[in-house]
Amino acid sequence: MNEAFKQAKIAYEEGEIPVGAVIVCKNKIIAKAYNQTEMLNDVTAHAEILAITSAENYLGAKYLTDCKLYVTLEPCVMCAGALFWSQITEVHYAAPDPKRGFRQCNPSILHPKTKLIQGSLASESEQLLLDFFKKLRN
Amino acid sequence: MNEAFKQAKIAYEEGEIPVGAVIVCKNKIIAKAYNQTEMLNDVTAHAEILAITSAENYLGAKYLTDCKLYVTLEPCVMCAGALFWSQITEVHYAAPDPKRGFRQCNPSILHPKTKLIQGSLASESEQLLLDFFKKLRN
Repeated sequence: MNEAFKQAKIAYEEGEIPVGAVIVCKNKIIAKAYNQTEMLNDVTAHAEILAITSAENYLGAKYLTDCKLYVTLEPCVMCAGALFWSQITEVHYAAPDPKRGFRQCNPSILHPKTKLIQGSLASESEQLLLDFFKKLRN
Repeated sequence: MNEAFKQAKIAYEEGEIPVGAVIVCKNKIIAKAYNQTEMLNDVTAHAEILAITSAENYLGAKYLTDCKLYVTLEPCVMCAGALFWSQITEVHYAAPDPKRGFRQCNPSILHPKTKLIQGSLASESEQLLLDFFKKLRN
């Protein structure tokens, strides 16, 4: 989660909503990404989507079995839907998202094979988001 | 929807699950795409996601207000989540998807501003999918 948090801090510095993600396969980081919706003018460019695409490209495979996602914010419906298709083994999120988190919509969006885990750095990840929106308003 | 169906037929010819999509803005097609999950080894490469990214790139804007999506199959949860973020004006789908369509998960995933419309070519689009899976099994 430390590496995902570093990605979120890069997003913060670049004026993006600060969310970062990494994907680990057999103890090796195979993808890192941060939210780039502003830079790319693309609502689909969430950290998780970019990390999934990157990891699948690295593996040359469509499925992320034996992979773990670490993300600093609970995935939204779009990202949870993408994670469903990937059949990823574990999803670790830091801060819960009571507004746009997928669990508000339907807690069963992830694949039945996928384990959802509340990871570390929840308060740090949330604080980074709060700082970002505070700066944006000023 | 005729143009979306042409995209689905290209997917069929290329061995992809045959789903096609186009996005129309002010009576002009600004994006065309078909499912490319196999070719790109990417579960996120659904026709709708590729069309959204392409349309936003064309417009240089993150939001698809004043745009209409035509897609040959009811969007999945991932694609409906992406359409939510895009705030697209209308979503026209041909064939319903009783298994993986977003309405099975939660009918309110789309943005409140978005109008969902059952469009034309439903049986043709469904038949193309049935033909594809029949060919795949043989």
